Amino acid sequence: MAFPRVVIVGGGFAGVAAARELRGSKAEVLLIDRRNHHIFQPLLYQVATAVLAPADIATPLRQLAEQQANLSVMLGEVSAVDRRARTLTVSPADMAPRTIPFDYLVVATGVRANYFGHDEFAAHAPCLKTLADAEAIRARILSAYERAEQTDDVAQRRRAMTFVLVGAGPTGVELAASMAQMARITLQSNFRHIDPTETRIVLVEAGPRALATFDESLARKAVERLEALGVEVRVGTRVEAIDARGVLAGGQRIESATVLWTAGVQASRLVAMLETKTDRAGRASVEPGLHLAEDVNVFVVGDAASVTQDGQPVPGVAQAAIQEGRHAGRAIAARLREPRTDTPPFRYNDRGNMAVVGKNFAVLQRGRWRASGITTWLLWALLHVAFLPQLQNRLRVQIQWVWSYLSGQRSSRLIPETPSGS
Amino acid sequence: MAFPRVVIVGGGFAGVAAARELRGSKAEVLLIDRRNHHIFQPLLYQVATAVLAPADIATPLRQLAEQQANLSVMLGEVSAVDRRARTLTVSPADMAPRTIPFDYLVVATGVRANYFGHDEFAAHAPCLKTLADAEAIRARILSAYERAEQTDDVAQRRRAMTFVLVGAGPTGVELAASMAQMARITLQSNFRHIDPTETRIVLVEAGPRALATFDESLARKAVERLEALGVEVRVGTRVEAIDARGVLAGGQRIESATVLWTAGVQASRLVAMLETKTDRAGRASVEPGLHLAEDVNVFVVGDAASVTQDGQPVPGVAQAAIQEGRHAGRAIAARLREPRTDTPPFRYNDRGNMAVVGKNFAVLQRGRWRASGITTWLLWALLHVAFLPQLQNRLRVQIQWVWSYLSGQRSSRLIPETPSGS
Repeated sequence: MAFPRVVIVGGGFAGVAAARELRGSKAEVLLIDRRNHHIFQPLLYQVATAVLAPADIATPLRQLAEQQANLSVMLGEVSAVDRRARTLTVSPADMAPRTIPFDYLVVATGVRANYFGHDEFAAHAPCLKTLADAEAIRARILSAYERAEQTDDVAQRRRAMTFVLVGAGPTGVELAASMAQMARITLQSNFRHIDPTETRIVLVEAGPRALATFDESLARKAVERLEALGVEVRVGTRVEAIDARGVLAGGQRIESATVLWTAGVQASRLVAMLETKTDRAGRASVEPGLHLAEDVNVFVVGDAASVTQDGQPVPGVAQAAIQEGRHAGRAIAARLREPRTDTPPFRYNDRGNMAVVGKNFAVLQRGRWRASGITTWLLWALLHVAFLPQLQNRLRVQIQWVWSYLSGQRSSRLIPETPSGS
Repeated sequence: MAFPRVVIVGGGFAGVAAARELRGSKAEVLLIDRRNHHIFQPLLYQVATAVLAPADIATPLRQLAEQQANLSVMLGEVSAVDRRARTLTVSPADMAPRTIPFDYLVVATGVRANYFGHDEFAAHAPCLKTLADAEAIRARILSAYERAEQTDDVAQRRRAMTFVLVGAGPTGVELAASMAQMARITLQSNFRHIDPTETRIVLVEAGPRALATFDESLARKAVERLEALGVEVRVGTRVEAIDARGVLAGGQRIESATVLWTAGVQASRLVAMLETKTDRAGRASVEPGLHLAEDVNVFVVGDAASVTQDGQPVPGVAQAAIQEGRHAGRAIAARLREPRTDTPPFRYNDRGNMAVVGKNFAVLQRGRWRASGITTWLLWALLHVAFLPQLQNRLRVQIQWVWSYLSGQRSSRLIPETPSGS
């Protein structure tokens, strides 16, 4: 094909938005991802707590190719980028690496967990970024109760029923609340030797308060709600050590068999390969047009980019990723139509920020507007259903929510096993 | 507790049915399973072909304990049985083995794949018994297309797009038809370098015909339908060798990267530990009351038992397992009410046997009644939805089916990955 080639790496919100803007463009668009599916990240914590099944929040990336004739999808891991030669090296699973040339590059590879120099924590404190992470966390939580039920050792039982979450951002808060409600409602009367309502959930935050990206008044309400659900919130508490039996946080030992990491994030490894300026978290410090200062044909969007607006960082939320992806896609589409090198600056339109704290409670801030409570929670639910990518996902999530709400059950309570073999 | 203890091993159709019959009995009922969930086995092939998500056909076993006060659930693997001492040894995951005494024992551990002396086939030809198997098969099928899309080697592409299924019983037939429709409808226009409609699916059967448990006229119709969907059916063809690149069947080599085993079954390993008479497939040859000849307090039910009625074997279908489980549960409940040692003989009430061959076609035989076609297929769908264990499963499966039927999409097209770690 004689058309210029646009390569987009990453099939999250930003990458998919960029690809869609190039529909109808005279370009060959290639979307590369390690995974064969897009996930609706804001509901990932509900997969980790067995409310939703992985497929409920996932869409096969190849389905996009069906709707967009100039798009092809490649499953593989990008192992190298050569900006000067304009090539990527991609290693598809089980196959020899291949070199992919590009005319335009959109890097939308998101973030991974940041253990702040303590990578040894990873083995004991998994993070929540992918569906596989969510399923692994779900299995850990459910297995902890199974172990508690079967042991006669009081200390071991206590440890199995204590969960420590590190990081009180939206993910930590939402996860803790959902876990607390699973313990109090879903698991009730499921066991004979333990009382799941005795579950202890400790949310540890190194910073001075929970939900730092929210207004202080909203964060306080969220914490009150968490505490009402039985979650212990410890702010200003730094985690010093994590092992298989617990954590040392703020000089105090908490015995816990299940520690989950929802603290910091850092850019994916691909950004470093671009050899451009990055911030402390490894995110590319892009120009206002979202391309690199060194190269107007290389864009970095979504969580992998560090974007500031009016002196404030644009937050790492789905809306920002979508808007940035669209911006890059449009900029490339414009250049494909008529040769130009200038790109209009990106403007983030803040649609608001929400966090949900269990049943019937969410907080919302948008501009100067603040809201919290059951109406906000309903709005949260409606918006999240509306933004899910397919009718089928929307229907499934709705059924699941109504069912969980009314019955207290969570039906994705599966502890995966290895295939049976012989 | 002073009540006698009934231990049920296996949370499939038979085990769950037995447990339910003991609701309200003066007994302490313990249900042991390796997995924390019951699965609706007849729809497992739809998980393998991405129509349904694992949670759609699964129910947490612990939920049963919520509805039945005298029931407790234990997650673990039974590693030994001592019939004389009336104890089991159970190894819960990560924990020391423990000895469990019983007064009554119900073995409902089902079957595993039978590679007929060729256990080395297992590595190349996975079977379909558990959710993990179904997910592994789904990943293999989807990954094969990804590899085909990315290779430039014609032979490798052809091999990746050739699927061999060994065994043309109901599972093999249903799986082959579903795979054929995925290739022709769902995957269409999803790729740029391959044409999924060129997928080759070969169904190999050692016996003289497909669907041996069905009437010959119905089996012929099913095969015609399969062939119309593009599946090659080869009967009277024995598989002699399987490796990573294909199979040797009936003296002929078929190059295939994906071989699936749906041929024979054999009883689970637990049955051998009972040291009782078994048939060739290792199933316990139980008395008409479904207990062992040597021990009236030890029952074997479901696929793990070899039951004959009027000189005919009772088939290994869900209905038979449920009825046998109920029979054992009732027999124990009766003995708990009044001391007796005789157990009435089990009578299988044949509710009929169905197999579905893709969209709009199923075969049914019940007694002397034979039916096939779209009406039978609708009946199949209605019955399977009705028999799903929870309202929530029923709703989800219905949505999924209607969605797949109308759009041709399959939304559980996930290739799982390992958790992200750091």
